[in-house]
Amino acid sequence: MSTRIATVVNGVDVGQLMDTIKAIEENPDLANFAFRAHNEWINGGHSQTTIQEFYGAGQTDTSRNEPFVLDGDEPPVLLGDNQGPNAVEAVLHALASCLATGFIYNAAARGIHVESLDFDIEGSLDLRAFLGLSDDVRPGYDDIRVNYRVKTDAPHDDVLELCEYVQNTSPVLDIIRNPVPVSVDLERIG
Amino acid sequence: MSTRIATVVNGVDVGQLMDTIKAIEENPDLANFAFRAHNEWINGGHSQTTIQEFYGAGQTDTSRNEPFVLDGDEPPVLLGDNQGPNAVEAVLHALASCLATGFIYNAAARGIHVESLDFDIEGSLDLRAFLGLSDDVRPGYDDIRVNYRVKTDAPHDDVLELCEYVQNTSPVLDIIRNPVPVSVDLERIG
Repeated sequence: MSTRIATVVNGVDVGQLMDTIKAIEENPDLANFAFRAHNEWINGGHSQTTIQEFYGAGQTDTSRNEPFVLDGDEPPVLLGDNQGPNAVEAVLHALASCLATGFIYNAAARGIHVESLDFDIEGSLDLRAFLGLSDDVRPGYDDIRVNYRVKTDAPHDDVLELCEYVQNTSPVLDIIRNPVPVSVDLERIG
Repeated sequence: MSTRIATVVNGVDVGQLMDTIKAIEENPDLANFAFRAHNEWINGGHSQTTIQEFYGAGQTDTSRNEPFVLDGDEPPVLLGDNQGPNAVEAVLHALASCLATGFIYNAAARGIHVESLDFDIEGSLDLRAFLGLSDDVRPGYDDIRVNYRVKTDAPHDDVLELCEYVQNTSPVLDIIRNPVPVSVDLERIG
C-alpha cells in the first residue's frame, strides 16, 4: 500500500519515475530493453514499418492494442511518391523526439516546470555516395544542427546544466554521435 | 524532347534514375541536400514532429502540400501514454525504411526484379544510462540486428553483391554505424 502523493510535473508522474529508478537500482536486469520493428516494402520507394511489442522491465510489453504504422517514401525528386517522410528525415524525427522526452523527464525529476519546448533540426547530406558517384563522401549526414527553444522560469544555470545532462544521456544522440554495431542477415525465400 | 522509353522496375522509373545520376555527375552541387524537421513538445513524453520542405537538387522542394506529422511518446512502463512509438523505435523504422529503398532502387538499376522484401529489426538498450544510474553503459543501442527476406529470381551472387552494395551506401546505416557530428544550441524564450 502506497501513501505517496502523486506529483505530476510537465505531465510526468515524478513519483512513478522515482519508483522506476529505485526498482532498476535494486534489479539492474529490469533495465535491459529490446525494441523491435517490422518493415514491408510496398512499391518503389514506399515501405511501411509496424511497431508494437518490445521487451523491457523483465517482460514483453503488451500495452499497445494496435501497432503504430509508419510510412517511408521518397519525394518525386528522389524518384518516390511522397507517401511518407524519407529515412534520413525519420532520423531527425527520432533525434528531436528523444531530446524532447529527455529534457521533459529530467526537468520533471528536478522540479523544473517547462512551459514550452520546440526544436528545429537540419542535417546536411551529399547524395553522391548513395548514387554510387563518389567514394570520397559518406552516405549519411556529415553534419546535424539542433536549435531548440525552451520557456521556463527556472534559473539559467539550472537550465544549462539540464541541457548538458540531456545531451549526455540521450539514447538517439548517442546512436548518431557514436558508432553502433549493426549486423545484417539476408534470407532468400520462394 | 526525350525519346526514351519509360522502364519501370520495382516501381522505380529507371530512366529517371539514370537521368538523375547523369545530372549530378555533370553538376555535383545538385547532390547537396539539407533535410529538416520541426518538433513541438505536447505533454509528458509526447511530442510531435512535422516534416515538409527540404533543400536539394539546387532548390527548396515544394512537392509536399501538407507536412508529414509524426508522434513520439513512451509506453506506460516508461511513463508515457503510447501516443506514438518512442525515439529509439523510430531509429529502427528509419533504418528499415532506408535499407528497403536502397535495396529496391539499386535492384531496379541492375534490372533485378524484386517480388517481396521485408525486414525484422531489433535493438538492445540498457536503460541505466538514460536514468542516470550508470556511467558504464552507453545511452543508445549497444547492438542492432537486421534480418531481411527477399523474393526474387535473380542469381544468388547478384543478390549477395547487391546486399553488400546497399550496406555500403545506405545513409541511415552509415549514420548509425559511424559517428556524425551534432551541434546543439539552446535558446530561452519568454
